[in-house]
Amino acid sequence: MNVKLVFKVLGHILRIESVFLLLPAMVALVYGESPLPFLVTALLLLCVGQGLCRLKTSPHFFTREGFVAVGLIWFATCLFGALPFWLSGSFPSFVDCVFESASGFTTTGASILTNIEAMPRGVLFWRSFTHWLGGMGVLVLATAVLPSMGIRPHYLTQAETPGPVFSKLVPKQSTTSKILYSIYFGLTVVETVLLKIAGMPWYDAVIHALSSAGTGGFSNRNASVGAYGSVAIDLIITVFILLFSVNFAVYFLLLTRKFRDILASDELRFFLTVVAGSTLLIAWNIRGLYSSFAQALRYAVFQVASIISTTGFATADFTLWPQLSHLILILIMFCGACAGSTGGGMKCSRILILGRSLRREIHRIVHPRSVEVVTLDGKVVEEETIHSALTFVGSYFLVILAGALVISLDNFSFSVSFSAALTCVSNVGPGLELIGPAGNFSIFSPLSKLVMSLCMIVGRLEILPVLVLFSRSTWRKD
Amino acid sequence: MNVKLVFKVLGHILRIESVFLLLPAMVALVYGESPLPFLVTALLLLCVGQGLCRLKTSPHFFTREGFVAVGLIWFATCLFGALPFWLSGSFPSFVDCVFESASGFTTTGASILTNIEAMPRGVLFWRSFTHWLGGMGVLVLATAVLPSMGIRPHYLTQAETPGPVFSKLVPKQSTTSKILYSIYFGLTVVETVLLKIAGMPWYDAVIHALSSAGTGGFSNRNASVGAYGSVAIDLIITVFILLFSVNFAVYFLLLTRKFRDILASDELRFFLTVVAGSTLLIAWNIRGLYSSFAQALRYAVFQVASIISTTGFATADFTLWPQLSHLILILIMFCGACAGSTGGGMKCSRILILGRSLRREIHRIVHPRSVEVVTLDGKVVEEETIHSALTFVGSYFLVILAGALVISLDNFSFSVSFSAALTCVSNVGPGLELIGPAGNFSIFSPLSKLVMSLCMIVGRLEILPVLVLFSRSTWRKD
Repeated sequence: MNVKLVFKVLGHILRIESVFLLLPAMVALVYGESPLPFLVTALLLLCVGQGLCRLKTSPHFFTREGFVAVGLIWFATCLFGALPFWLSGSFPSFVDCVFESASGFTTTGASILTNIEAMPRGVLFWRSFTHWLGGMGVLVLATAVLPSMGIRPHYLTQAETPGPVFSKLVPKQSTTSKILYSIYFGLTVVETVLLKIAGMPWYDAVIHALSSAGTGGFSNRNASVGAYGSVAIDLIITVFILLFSVNFAVYFLLLTRKFRDILASDELRFFLTVVAGSTLLIAWNIRGLYSSFAQALRYAVFQVASIISTTGFATADFTLWPQLSHLILILIMFCGACAGSTGGGMKCSRILILGRSLRREIHRIVHPRSVEVVTLDGKVVEEETIHSALTFVGSYFLVILAGALVISLDNFSFSVSFSAALTCVSNVGPGLELIGPAGNFSIFSPLSKLVMSLCMIVGRLEILPVLVLFSRSTWRKD
Repeated sequence: MNVKLVFKVLGHILRIESVFLLLPAMVALVYGESPLPFLVTALLLLCVGQGLCRLKTSPHFFTREGFVAVGLIWFATCLFGALPFWLSGSFPSFVDCVFESASGFTTTGASILTNIEAMPRGVLFWRSFTHWLGGMGVLVLATAVLPSMGIRPHYLTQAETPGPVFSKLVPKQSTTSKILYSIYFGLTVVETVLLKIAGMPWYDAVIHALSSAGTGGFSNRNASVGAYGSVAIDLIITVFILLFSVNFAVYFLLLTRKFRDILASDELRFFLTVVAGSTLLIAWNIRGLYSSFAQALRYAVFQVASIISTTGFATADFTLWPQLSHLILILIMFCGACAGSTGGGMKCSRILILGRSLRREIHRIVHPRSVEVVTLDGKVVEEETIHSALTFVGSYFLVILAGALVISLDNFSFSVSFSAALTCVSNVGPGLELIGPAGNFSIFSPLSKLVMSLCMIVGRLEILPVLVLFSRSTWRKD
């Protein structure tokens, strides 16, 4: 383990993060609030980052170092990101700040705030900005910094986006990153403008666009998107969170006019089918609660898009809907978005691999002599990839159950403990009953909040980097 | 597909089942009740069985035929087993009878009865006897019948006990079956005698021994085992349900004095560790509810043994315990007993394989050049077995969520819908809240009851045989 180089990489990232903190400081200034919480944190990050960057070390940096670096960077980022909240004095405790920061960077969007609208505007901007930064991860930072240190960015990006079908778009990783970030930035700007046109104030439009892009879910309104009561706004956000849940490679294929390749994507078809099916089922289930089926459909499609994209915005309190709707939402919380998107969850491609692996088991029984492979998008999936995907799915459930176990010490109902762990690991935001869209996470003990923060990071990094970071074999002398 | 031979095998099994029905008929006679419900069913089974046995066919019988036969036999057995309940006139509807029968044969032990003590004694005997028959499955029937038909019993037994470590004890399958059944029968007799000595009437002792052996859970008392309020009875049942949750190969090793091989069993160690850990945690969690820690320990160990063995007896209403205890019980419902036992759940060995597969993923990252295998009991586990185990774990969760989805149409809370599906798939019995030890399953709609019956069979057969039975490729012409 090249610990020094890992810390050096961390130092570089922290330095860049300090620059990003100037943006909320400016927002605070514009609205006549104190920019100090952001500037103090920025200064601290700069000092720590600068110190770490001075470490002298060999350039040995491989898969192991990549995973450890990604794990460390995320823990450090979430901790330092909590400082502006704490320094602002608007949060009850430091644990609450850590929870909010982890929820922000991991694009979960669960909040401990009981009255969001009473918060300073700079703080709310930082909250949503963490979504945007966390959505794409340290990818761009990595590609901007690592080559100059003689490190192949590949070792970081494979740790951060271990989904089974995150294909490299072009031979050079840095070019891929530039394309991805351009798409990300472009879509965010377009959404902001559209939201403004639809009637949101500029500030609100920026906040909601940032939160949509990262599929996070922090709003600056207590009633979330529902506060605007506008069909146009609902529709714009529905479309954009779905766009951000799709493998970004699709946009690259669009730009290069490879339309046939897009249609060949099993994951995209599966994702859209699940969205359509869940929307229709929920609309049918809640039709009695609204004046018309069209109304029911409007709220259903928004909530389905919000949950499956793991954003967590709300236009209605789904805890008041019948139980079938709850179950559908829980199911799509597990499922999540497409691999290679900013969304969380297990990812559609892994569900597909599980389904096809099961089908192969059946075929093996029916035709014992035939040799069958698992395919995705018409290509054979390697056995090792299937293995990793299946191990991931099983571990995902175990992590959720383990998280729920600790949270259950707070003695809330099983629905609350279980959905809290699920929504955090899947980076969604709201859960069932007390932690639904109308509730919040302030009810939990500090221990539960810390465990949930850990769950969010474990979910965002898809388990392995955190396990590698805390594994004994990682730190053993070779 | 050799459909005719599959039906012929079914016919043989049904004929044997008709003989078993004479036992509850005798019990009914002894207690002055009408034996007609059992005799009529026996006659019907005999006729149908006889008819099917006359089918003329070729002796082609392979894996595929084995899986389809096992699936069919279980569906038919659960349906015909419901007839005595229905003919007795003590059940509200035929769907209820099917539920109770499926719950019996699959050794689940969930009941729709609201007042068990008001039922005829013959009916209650049949109810517990189905547990005993279902516990070992059609294994003995198969080994008794198949060789005379020129079929290798292997093809049936591999479909019924697909757990990863069900080792053949001796080279000949029929000898293995005889040994297993002798152990099963012997332990049941010993438990009956011990329960009688501890103070149970003979009838109750037989009922509880049959239900323990199959790790089923049907009692003839409304308050289950708690009705006796006897430490000795609690202890005997705790020990025996744990004995029935252990891979039966262990007893064979005991008989042949291979003590070292027993100690080498990873699954056994894991199982006992989980039992001890869960017991201590729950006892600590509920210590305030009982007069002493010893009392808390007594109720905790009984409930842990009852749930992890997937029996479902109760001496206390655990729905009144704190939420941490609920979560632990839910976790061990998933886990279940050891492979090769009469218990249900995912089986400890599969959890072990998942854990070791995850550890291998970590090692691959830390030492990319090393080649690592997954071991169990010191032996290398084949990649295909790992694959099957991982696919099973993922599918298990999906089946539970799918079951909960349909059950949620009844609009009970998420805790109820989810735990109902889980307890049925894992063949446990009680769930959370309304369906806890003090509740029952009469609250559900006929649709939910049928789906739960299906869940029980899917869980008992470990998914694949049911999928093979309903798969299009099975029935396609070669």
